[in-house]
Amino acid sequence: MELRDFGEFGLIAHIRKLFPEIGDDCAVLPGRSGFFLLATVDSQVEGTHFRLSLIPPFSLGRRLLVANLSDIAAMGGIPRYALTSFVLREDIPFSWFEEFLLGLQEEALRYGVTVVGGNLARTAGPVTLDLVLLGEVEDDRPLLLRSNARPGDCIFVTGYLGEAKAGFLLVEQGEERSEYQPLRERFFTASPRLSVGRFLGSLGERIALIDVSDGLLQDLGHILEESKVGAVLEKEALPVSSLLAQFCKEKHYDPLDFVFRGGEDFELLFTAPPHLEEIILRSIPGRLGIPVSRIGNIIPEEGKIFIEEDGKLLPLSTLGFDHFVRKER
Amino acid sequence: MELRDFGEFGLIAHIRKLFPEIGDDCAVLPGRSGFFLLATVDSQVEGTHFRLSLIPPFSLGRRLLVANLSDIAAMGGIPRYALTSFVLREDIPFSWFEEFLLGLQEEALRYGVTVVGGNLARTAGPVTLDLVLLGEVEDDRPLLLRSNARPGDCIFVTGYLGEAKAGFLLVEQGEERSEYQPLRERFFTASPRLSVGRFLGSLGERIALIDVSDGLLQDLGHILEESKVGAVLEKEALPVSSLLAQFCKEKHYDPLDFVFRGGEDFELLFTAPPHLEEIILRSIPGRLGIPVSRIGNIIPEEGKIFIEEDGKLLPLSTLGFDHFVRKER
Repeated sequence: MELRDFGEFGLIAHIRKLFPEIGDDCAVLPGRSGFFLLATVDSQVEGTHFRLSLIPPFSLGRRLLVANLSDIAAMGGIPRYALTSFVLREDIPFSWFEEFLLGLQEEALRYGVTVVGGNLARTAGPVTLDLVLLGEVEDDRPLLLRSNARPGDCIFVTGYLGEAKAGFLLVEQGEERSEYQPLRERFFTASPRLSVGRFLGSLGERIALIDVSDGLLQDLGHILEESKVGAVLEKEALPVSSLLAQFCKEKHYDPLDFVFRGGEDFELLFTAPPHLEEIILRSIPGRLGIPVSRIGNIIPEEGKIFIEEDGKLLPLSTLGFDHFVRKER
Repeated sequence: MELRDFGEFGLIAHIRKLFPEIGDDCAVLPGRSGFFLLATVDSQVEGTHFRLSLIPPFSLGRRLLVANLSDIAAMGGIPRYALTSFVLREDIPFSWFEEFLLGLQEEALRYGVTVVGGNLARTAGPVTLDLVLLGEVEDDRPLLLRSNARPGDCIFVTGYLGEAKAGFLLVEQGEERSEYQPLRERFFTASPRLSVGRFLGSLGERIALIDVSDGLLQDLGHILEESKVGAVLEKEALPVSSLLAQFCKEKHYDPLDFVFRGGEDFELLFTAPPHLEEIILRSIPGRLGIPVSRIGNIIPEEGKIFIEEDGKLLPLSTLGFDHFVRKER
């Protein structure tokens, strides 16, 4: 038996058997007076998450922080300190490394993160970049846990989904038309939704929150699994940007595939009781300037996802999607 | 210009220009009431730090924690929480991964560390294992900083140096005689000196402390550089175990080379004012059961290291050692 026979989630399940204290994307630990300490780690591996020829080093430096910032956002937290671990080949141009560091520095400054330590190692193999991010969240607020969803809750998502995947395809295909530049930018570096996480935490309500790093279906699946509920998604409400729609039409792709399985959007997906719908739909665009859509409802049927279209409910499997499918990129 | 033209310390200097808050091996951050939070990260890279064929996976799992525990020890701290980042090939046998996790679990249990989170990624290249360790140290004690050494201080080191390097050579050469098993064990997994770090911190005195991860000369060099002082080492006082002496005699190696440049001993090297000599030499072996040697003195001459032998002082360079030379392994 090799690791490939287990898949990512099989291995994680095995690791959790030995280390049962491993929790959500962020560890929640005792912190300074008044706060929990949050800790999360994420890697960018050459050949798996990026290729040197496809992403400018400055963007890669920014991107290394994004997934971690998004994990802190998904806890309603404030990012504070980072430690880095870089495993580098000796033939990497110094100018590449310098640009990479400048990108990391810019993103750190933008979000108030102080890089306080790190480690360097050599390799003959792929460049591997790890970053650990420590953050804080007030300890007198309810945690925004994945297990918080209840039947009747509304499901919301920020921004537009699937654009990062479209950007990846554009870069991979060498498609350089300037009209698609916003999609490429979304692939290079998304905007972690820290302000939305802070806003949701400040409500002091029962909210299940996760960031969309592996595609809507997989990340919604985590909420459904941990809350032991199901979901109905309204097809017309799924946030497809006009640029993604144009791209998909031109390239003969199904935009739904990008929304459901495109990864690395780093939007926030959350459920909340219906009495919060109005304040959410008003405040997030109005006060934070970030689009938000109500895309469906939580239902009691555990693990089930239905799509509602023209008043009809279709189980997801009939549409050819499996919500625990691994992302392919 | 490629990264190889800068070397590890050149790159670290460049990183520190952009991120001036990066400190010693451990970051010292605001913590729970009464404590600083300590954070450190270390990697084990296949082909650089280990080879799958040479180290049993259980030992590798233990070893992944050791360098981090040693960093916490060097701050006089208590280890608390770990996050892991594993970059794995899909053709790795599951049984290998299972044994690796069991080794990590054993070492974590031994030192009271809770693994609270992690990340998994695929690669086609070398296995890369990162671990972040969070710890604590009381905030009302003087920190055991590398910059604390003053002329007249005594220099001490725990245990015996150079054994891990001898163990590495034995494993690499396929030398399987059982009399050398203790050296191989020292290479597989050293014992981080947490109790010594705690003892030194409890003294509340001006002590410069570092762990010996890169060989005595390089790590002493860090203390000398940051304290702007020099050192005299007494050749006869350097702790060479009888087993290392036997190994070097048989294989025609110079034991001094192992003591000075052997890496990954994870002993503690520290300086202290002379009035502490008696309590250090009595308490560390007597109360903690760990050998300790006084190996020399701090002198004012910045960056200079002399070796004292038969009453004569020889500058280190005449012996063919350069204390900023990178380790070769």
